[in-house]
Amino acid sequence: MTDNRFSEADRRAVYRAIHERRDMRHFSGGSIEPDILSQLLNAAHAAPSVGLMQPWRFIRITDRSLRDQLYQQVQTERRATAAALGERESEFMALKVEGILDCAELLVVTLKDEREQHIFGRRTMPHMDIASTACAIQNLWLAARAEGLGMGWVSLFEPAALSNLLQLPEGAAPLAILCLGPVTQFYERPMLEQEDWAQRAPLEQFVMENQWQKP
Amino acid sequence: MTDNRFSEADRRAVYRAIHERRDMRHFSGGSIEPDILSQLLNAAHAAPSVGLMQPWRFIRITDRSLRDQLYQQVQTERRATAAALGERESEFMALKVEGILDCAELLVVTLKDEREQHIFGRRTMPHMDIASTACAIQNLWLAARAEGLGMGWVSLFEPAALSNLLQLPEGAAPLAILCLGPVTQFYERPMLEQEDWAQRAPLEQFVMENQWQKP
Repeated sequence: MTDNRFSEADRRAVYRAIHERRDMRHFSGGSIEPDILSQLLNAAHAAPSVGLMQPWRFIRITDRSLRDQLYQQVQTERRATAAALGERESEFMALKVEGILDCAELLVVTLKDEREQHIFGRRTMPHMDIASTACAIQNLWLAARAEGLGMGWVSLFEPAALSNLLQLPEGAAPLAILCLGPVTQFYERPMLEQEDWAQRAPLEQFVMENQWQKP
Repeated sequence: MTDNRFSEADRRAVYRAIHERRDMRHFSGGSIEPDILSQLLNAAHAAPSVGLMQPWRFIRITDRSLRDQLYQQVQTERRATAAALGERESEFMALKVEGILDCAELLVVTLKDEREQHIFGRRTMPHMDIASTACAIQNLWLAARAEGLGMGWVSLFEPAALSNLLQLPEGAAPLAILCLGPVTQFYERPMLEQEDWAQRAPLEQFVMENQWQKP
């Protein structure tokens, strides 16, 4: 075990990335150097995947009018979500929930088509492709934090409309709109906590032993 | 941007955890110190979650007969998967697909019950709870790698049977059986690649611009 363990300084760096990563909605424009963007995507691509199926695809949005159309789709879903929230509608509408127009880079992450061919680890758990792709996104998120770049995962969209906009084939599906780029500063705590939308609960309430227990 | 960026040594540590993390199936027994296990779970709990819903729950399996029953459930699904694979059945059966009986710690990660209350980011994308929980598991995986501990994510189980065994309430669902603990060495490449089950493809085949493109 000792041989495989990172040095104390290196362990601290890994935990720092994990604990200082934030879901960012405030970006300061700018750009990302191509070799850094490439390292971030390589970090994502180093993720585990069920049966090594590598279900993730990354669509880099470089066309400005396409970015605007994507923004409009998110606004539409934002209003629909607000209405569905009922009594918390105005509270939700006061939150900044995306940074699509301000971020340096915009990526759409999708699940690939023809996933039904992959049975290993998915016969009873077909959604493992979603889990694998989320692991890739988390890798990207942590690498971005180490590079001093913010990232926000936006899921306020209608999958069919976004699939249509990006001409996804039958069987593929969008999982994330990722806003990525320089930020002035990282939130000290999760933004939804700072804004009193929700609070984090202590870890003890999430850990049980041998069977489900009420917290 | 420069202010937020980690030092070169710290960036290297983060990338090392990302690129040297492996989905482990070979464990060397032993145990995990309680404070390290706690740090790993805290790393998981530091993950992002849609609308800050924190959908993850961790069930630590400390009862040996329960571990054996869990192992039997995985064996049952392993045989069912092998049969479903058809011509690759014997190739699959030759693979080591779990380390349940050999790992120091066994954790089952589940999605919590009463998730339908959470609409933020999930009105059109209800599976975002799976994605958030996968991000938590990826955090745990990377932190474990930094600690020199291996982890394997097993999804070869029947969710209803596992839910029943662990007395999950209606609405909760298991997402992962995690084998965690000391290993003799980490695989140099993903085990399924070393065993010629599948090959990783180069990143270029996963990145597109502005719309879906055939690789």
